[in-house]
Amino acid sequence: MNSKGVTLWFTGLSGSGKTTIAKEVERKLKAWGCKVERLDGDIVRTNLSKGLGFSKEDRDTNIRRIGFVAKLLSRNGVVAITAAISPYRAIRDEIRQMTENFVEVYVKAPLEVCESRDVKGLYARARAGEIKNFTGIDDPYEEPLNAEVVCDTNTESIEESADKVLEVLASLGYIQVQEVPNHTI
Amino acid sequence: MNSKGVTLWFTGLSGSGKTTIAKEVERKLKAWGCKVERLDGDIVRTNLSKGLGFSKEDRDTNIRRIGFVAKLLSRNGVVAITAAISPYRAIRDEIRQMTENFVEVYVKAPLEVCESRDVKGLYARARAGEIKNFTGIDDPYEEPLNAEVVCDTNTESIEESADKVLEVLASLGYIQVQEVPNHTI
Repeated sequence: MNSKGVTLWFTGLSGSGKTTIAKEVERKLKAWGCKVERLDGDIVRTNLSKGLGFSKEDRDTNIRRIGFVAKLLSRNGVVAITAAISPYRAIRDEIRQMTENFVEVYVKAPLEVCESRDVKGLYARARAGEIKNFTGIDDPYEEPLNAEVVCDTNTESIEESADKVLEVLASLGYIQVQEVPNHTI
Repeated sequence: MNSKGVTLWFTGLSGSGKTTIAKEVERKLKAWGCKVERLDGDIVRTNLSKGLGFSKEDRDTNIRRIGFVAKLLSRNGVVAITAAISPYRAIRDEIRQMTENFVEVYVKAPLEVCESRDVKGLYARARAGEIKNFTGIDDPYEEPLNAEVVCDTNTESIEESADKVLEVLASLGYIQVQEVPNHTI
């Protein structure tokens, strides 16, 4: 399996399924022997953005840092997967502009669905006013207008969403699947 | 030319010649077709560490971030070259511990020599009290005890220092020089 470097940028509400799909895509690419780094939100907050909060300015800084690191990795042949909420369109587009190989994956699910999942209990805390500037509650999420992939996690399985992403990567020439045995997909 | 990923960590006083040697090493490795990223101090300050100052805590954070990014790159086959002063031994050793392939290059020159070079005029400003916590003046520089390479820029040419680094990379198996025509060295 050959792969070219690409920045695979997941965006979506908290609880939309970004990390779940990103992990599944990562798993398959690794099984195929691709070089992959997933810049998980928490890892990035710890290693690159400690001290930053969730104001618009701090969020933008956090996203720019993730974009900078993803760019360094992807221009060296790595599939750099990011899965931060990245709610603001302008910053996502800025990263797109500065990155040669940028593929945006909009992980779409209605707010009510994300809130009902509430895996980390964050929506409940945001509704209770314990967390401020929470995307979808008291901070906006600006939907992508031209994402290369849209995964509707309200109707698709994780498997279907991940395969959609991989198909787009293949159709754009970032990965070249050669004789992939079914069981590895 | 084959190369394995490695974090090539230059350390030394301001004006010791870190960036100059790092650029020469980068130039040669690129001419040989290696994947190289140089995490220049200024680029890093802009893209990863905006807002950080020069207190011990902020310096440590800056160095940890550089180490984190270098680790991501080097474990994916890239020669990640860093050239920050990185004055504190404990943090350099921390990065060494968390990085599989770490090669430390101590760029050594007496303080008087670095100060007389004063390319950026920083020593003058530090002596005048305009810059606080300046390494070598009112902040310590802790020499490496076990650097893989020591470049003495007071007695060696840039060329000699760079070749020393490349020879160590080769002897440690990080680069494999095959039929290198003299003029490319």
